Amino acid sequence: MKLEYKLIKKSAKNMARLGEFTYNGKVYKTPMFMPVGTNATVKTLAPEEIKEIGCGIILANTYHLWLRPGEDIVAKAGGLHKFMNYDGPILTDSGGYQVFSLAKPKDITEEGVHFKNHENGDKLFLTPEKSIEIQQKLGSDIVMSFDECVKWPSTHEYIENSVERTLNWARRGKEVFKSKDQMLFGIVQGGEYEDLRRHCAEELIKMDFDGYSVGGTSVGEDKKTMYKMVKYATKYLPEDKLRYLMGVGDPIDLIENVMRGIDLFDCVSPTRLARHGHAYTKNGKINLKNSKYKEDFTPVEDGCNCYACKNYTKAYIRHLITADETFGARLLSIHNITFLTNLMTEIRKNIETDTLEEFRDKFIKDYYGEGYEYK
Amino acid sequence: MKLEYKLIKKSAKNMARLGEFTYNGKVYKTPMFMPVGTNATVKTLAPEEIKEIGCGIILANTYHLWLRPGEDIVAKAGGLHKFMNYDGPILTDSGGYQVFSLAKPKDITEEGVHFKNHENGDKLFLTPEKSIEIQQKLGSDIVMSFDECVKWPSTHEYIENSVERTLNWARRGKEVFKSKDQMLFGIVQGGEYEDLRRHCAEELIKMDFDGYSVGGTSVGEDKKTMYKMVKYATKYLPEDKLRYLMGVGDPIDLIENVMRGIDLFDCVSPTRLARHGHAYTKNGKINLKNSKYKEDFTPVEDGCNCYACKNYTKAYIRHLITADETFGARLLSIHNITFLTNLMTEIRKNIETDTLEEFRDKFIKDYYGEGYEYK
Repeated sequence: MKLEYKLIKKSAKNMARLGEFTYNGKVYKTPMFMPVGTNATVKTLAPEEIKEIGCGIILANTYHLWLRPGEDIVAKAGGLHKFMNYDGPILTDSGGYQVFSLAKPKDITEEGVHFKNHENGDKLFLTPEKSIEIQQKLGSDIVMSFDECVKWPSTHEYIENSVERTLNWARRGKEVFKSKDQMLFGIVQGGEYEDLRRHCAEELIKMDFDGYSVGGTSVGEDKKTMYKMVKYATKYLPEDKLRYLMGVGDPIDLIENVMRGIDLFDCVSPTRLARHGHAYTKNGKINLKNSKYKEDFTPVEDGCNCYACKNYTKAYIRHLITADETFGARLLSIHNITFLTNLMTEIRKNIETDTLEEFRDKFIKDYYGEGYEYK
Repeated sequence: MKLEYKLIKKSAKNMARLGEFTYNGKVYKTPMFMPVGTNATVKTLAPEEIKEIGCGIILANTYHLWLRPGEDIVAKAGGLHKFMNYDGPILTDSGGYQVFSLAKPKDITEEGVHFKNHENGDKLFLTPEKSIEIQQKLGSDIVMSFDECVKWPSTHEYIENSVERTLNWARRGKEVFKSKDQMLFGIVQGGEYEDLRRHCAEELIKMDFDGYSVGGTSVGEDKKTMYKMVKYATKYLPEDKLRYLMGVGDPIDLIENVMRGIDLFDCVSPTRLARHGHAYTKNGKINLKNSKYKEDFTPVEDGCNCYACKNYTKAYIRHLITADETFGARLLSIHNITFLTNLMTEIRKNIETDTLEEFRDKFIKDYYGEGYEYK
């Protein structure tokens, strides 16, 4: 395996953990935020920019790369790393989330999912075996099992059946997974039902995956429910394996879910928000399109160490965004990914000093203002 | 003046010239190709990338910056250089070309041009004084006189009147031009009529501009006619001043017009072609969207020293372009601007050795194939 996880410290006060892994001779620390490079590119950015920000793992989407350019072309290119010129670690999802969110209509069978290509309507069929096969050809470092991503809310009965399907699919995927270089993760589903999350986690653990993901959050539930779901999963997971919460990237969710034992996060938010002119700051999200920034010649965030903040003003970035110049989205993508990456650094420091609760409380006060309630 | 031109060598065989100027302590050599940064950004690229390519002057569009964000905001930012974080030389056009090409309908009077904003239909009025005033506020290093850009073909009678208007506008602009740091260029119009080009050049020279542009080419005429127009202008221009051919960037046009005495060129082609998936190569333009590049794991051009060619394959760039990922346009913009920048380096070498004709003939053979005819 190219990537081996080591647990370094467990918080005395909550479920937060510090860990690290070495990859290509470089040490990466967890908890970590992973930017998303759907089409084998983190939108608008070069790999050098990703590395300069201090990112580690990046995520690529199996569904998109399967449809275009196709996993065989990526394999012929020598795998994703060579194809996109990124020598850091890469995680691929299973395609499951996209099949369940982008592709409609779909028909879920025990064998797999029949659905239509969201761009051209072609009939497609994705199975657990196919998903693993694609990810092996893509040559990512961390591979996800194919799972059913269930919407929220769903009944206990529906999710009970769905969890069995997800477990079968995980087993079938593991059987065809032959790679020595890649890690294979199982995905804990089970909605908001602790018994189902527990059952799913315990069955996956019997299959002995290299790491575990928590799925089926960020599908419409409120924050309180999300945090509950995460805890219902992580409490049954082994301590010596990585835990990855899929599709979650709201700053406060990063903190709260680290406190519930999560090591890895990914989300399209920092780059998607950037394209719409939004920037994270310690005092909340700001919209650069707002006319009050027309003559604001200060950086997006004072004291921020990112390339955008060191060299450009709000007024300039606002101008780029309103003029539809992609350099604007690029600068805000750098800023937003830096913001989340720096936030993870702060989180790790506060795990070290066992002050994560205090850090969270101050972060919430700065970000949302006094009196914010979500629990 | 921040930028002073020095003629270094005149070709013995044609009108080509070598020159140089120092700007912010750095020596720049002419002939030179200038990439276009319409909205105070060379589309998709950071200033560092522009500099790494080896570009010198970049061009920004007065018309666009006047309308958005407005010259006063740029002035408050400390001028274009600070606004866009580019410490190399910047040239602004007069807005004339955009008024005549983008804005319709328009009403040309002696006073100036009435027209409508091409985006929102607002009524606008641009005069020679206003154009200079805007460019002074933008704080570029080279400023253009406001001229009438006439379509091709036009009658001798129409162009005769138009040249008088352009001369009056040049005079009025020069009267309000107060900057000590900026160069002001006069623009030689006159269509394809040598007597009018000569008259225009001679009258401008009497006004003593810091440099001279050749306008009214690339407006629909064939190459033979363009080259003729350029020669009709340059042969009457002083040798100790820069000559700038506006809006021309086709590789062969760079070579041919250097041979007719041009020092500076600008064109949106390298970045516009990039956004459409096209790349210059020594063997002609290629379209990366072509399916034959699907599994082509070689660089856009073998031996090219640009960032895109050193790190990425045609297959990857093709994938980015077809997936609408802006990193594709960014890579091809880098390649295309590098191509033209390297071409100018080759041109300068061949002026040095008096071998530009031979270089041109070989270039044409490689680029267009055997038997290409345009003269």
